[in-house]
Amino acid sequence: MVELAVGIDIGGTNTLIGLVNRKGETLTETNISTTTHSNIEDYFAQIAQEIQNLLTKLGEGYRLLGIGIGAPNGNYYNGTIEYAPNLNWRGVINVVELMQKHFSLPVVLTNDANAAALGEMIYGGAKGMKNFVVITLGTGLGSGLVVNGDVVYGHDGFAGELGHTIVKENGRLCGCGLRGCMETYVSATGLKRTYMEMMAYFPFKAALSSKSFDEITAKDISIAAQNGDKVAIETFDFTARMLGQKIAETAAYLSPEAVFLFGGLAQSGELLFAPTRKYMEENMLSVYKNKIKLLPSQVDGANAAVLGASALIWKELESPRKK
Amino acid sequence: MVELAVGIDIGGTNTLIGLVNRKGETLTETNISTTTHSNIEDYFAQIAQEIQNLLTKLGEGYRLLGIGIGAPNGNYYNGTIEYAPNLNWRGVINVVELMQKHFSLPVVLTNDANAAALGEMIYGGAKGMKNFVVITLGTGLGSGLVVNGDVVYGHDGFAGELGHTIVKENGRLCGCGLRGCMETYVSATGLKRTYMEMMAYFPFKAALSSKSFDEITAKDISIAAQNGDKVAIETFDFTARMLGQKIAETAAYLSPEAVFLFGGLAQSGELLFAPTRKYMEENMLSVYKNKIKLLPSQVDGANAAVLGASALIWKELESPRKK
Repeated sequence: MVELAVGIDIGGTNTLIGLVNRKGETLTETNISTTTHSNIEDYFAQIAQEIQNLLTKLGEGYRLLGIGIGAPNGNYYNGTIEYAPNLNWRGVINVVELMQKHFSLPVVLTNDANAAALGEMIYGGAKGMKNFVVITLGTGLGSGLVVNGDVVYGHDGFAGELGHTIVKENGRLCGCGLRGCMETYVSATGLKRTYMEMMAYFPFKAALSSKSFDEITAKDISIAAQNGDKVAIETFDFTARMLGQKIAETAAYLSPEAVFLFGGLAQSGELLFAPTRKYMEENMLSVYKNKIKLLPSQVDGANAAVLGASALIWKELESPRKK
Repeated sequence: MVELAVGIDIGGTNTLIGLVNRKGETLTETNISTTTHSNIEDYFAQIAQEIQNLLTKLGEGYRLLGIGIGAPNGNYYNGTIEYAPNLNWRGVINVVELMQKHFSLPVVLTNDANAAALGEMIYGGAKGMKNFVVITLGTGLGSGLVVNGDVVYGHDGFAGELGHTIVKENGRLCGCGLRGCMETYVSATGLKRTYMEMMAYFPFKAALSSKSFDEITAKDISIAAQNGDKVAIETFDFTARMLGQKIAETAAYLSPEAVFLFGGLAQSGELLFAPTRKYMEENMLSVYKNKIKLLPSQVDGANAAVLGASALIWKELESPRKK
């Protein structure tokens, strides 16, 4: 029997469902819309049906060990999604209970960034590491912290929100209501905002000056920088400074073995990594200097959300959290 | 047989040695000079002798379970003091090895702030808590972070240095070489530095204007504030803002159940706690608001260093760290 974990990634638009083996290979997967069901029970009934279909498709010789779910505002302790701003269902959703109506299996839930951290630990570059941090750079910035081999969930299940720690006093307004949050600087959106500021600051022509804010993508800025656009290079340098300073601070909290960068922006490679390394070392307390690795995620980006969610199950079965 | 743990606090000047029961009562204690022995072996031989003397003094019916040691730059993993700037012995000192020459008992070492956190967990206000933070406010600022019931030691044993995270970009110069470290603002010394700045800023007479920097103590500033000195009140307000902002940030890392303040400055009571609470809530991401308790340490201040060190032993025996 090949043992499999189900990985489910609940996004605002789509829900991805995959069956994953211990090596981190997604044997089969599918996706459904997150938005078409007005009734939450129907939504989970469809997920259950899709899992059955995937299993049927694989044929004999497979056994499900559990269902891992990554979702915005997913709470590990309670098994609930709590007040997720970009899901249709309001309030508190008891995901574990809803899922266990269909399967007598362990169901484990957390948020997407924590799932990414577990994906890194089970399948990726953090194998064997006990203390590390994963920073996911997308439209926003998420983070998963691992201490003593366990994800830091904190007292209430909501720890690990580095995107909303401050990198600039009285800095940019953030959607969360605070000012100067790292997410407003270090993310695809943050990069665009910085590019706008840099265009305003420098007297010379920027490569992307003919494009609107809505048109410009982080990838455009990355390509412009590679082609020598000074504005784009300065944009990356500034972004790296904000990130590097924050990693130096994170060292003083957690002294991790490594920090992994994940997501679109992380694919800018040395354009982001080289200056980030420089700024993190410059700002690091001497005891941590030249000890902490800054690495790109080793989890396949296209499947990372499903992989991360499935990793919750292997983690739970193989090295359960100390109660 | 009453079981006892030895608690040893190695300070720059004095070394305190106490025998402590499970309830946190120091049954007997003594102290020796840290500076008189040029040979480290002699120093530990004397400590061993003092422990024997204390035990003899207590008489029959007692059994030692282990020796816990708090020391500057104490490394839990290696059992070593590494390059402590204010001890006479240079380099790396293998404390556990030196101590076990005299006793066949568990010997556990960490730094003073981590020991304080364990003291809070074993004997104090953090009993039963799995996620909390202790901030020690003395000449400098130390911190011990507890996650999932264990002290955060990080990859190298040196995690938890909140005193050297930044509260002001390009802020005050710190002894560590960085700028704007929390310790330069939130500590007895930081309070004095702020009082100087506030005296410079305000046009009216400060209560302590006739005293020199060297003469002024944190306690003077505390008394001045209680007597209505505007400069002192503003000094506390500013200090509380720096601390409150940092606690809000700490929430986004660790989402602790409580933050305990320990040390002389913490004894300023509501003068410090009230504005710190205000600023921490103002700066907190909404998910953490009104959840995290700000509390004074419940460990007896006079004996805290010895108690914290002894707590290392109960912790090690009762709920060992997951390997």
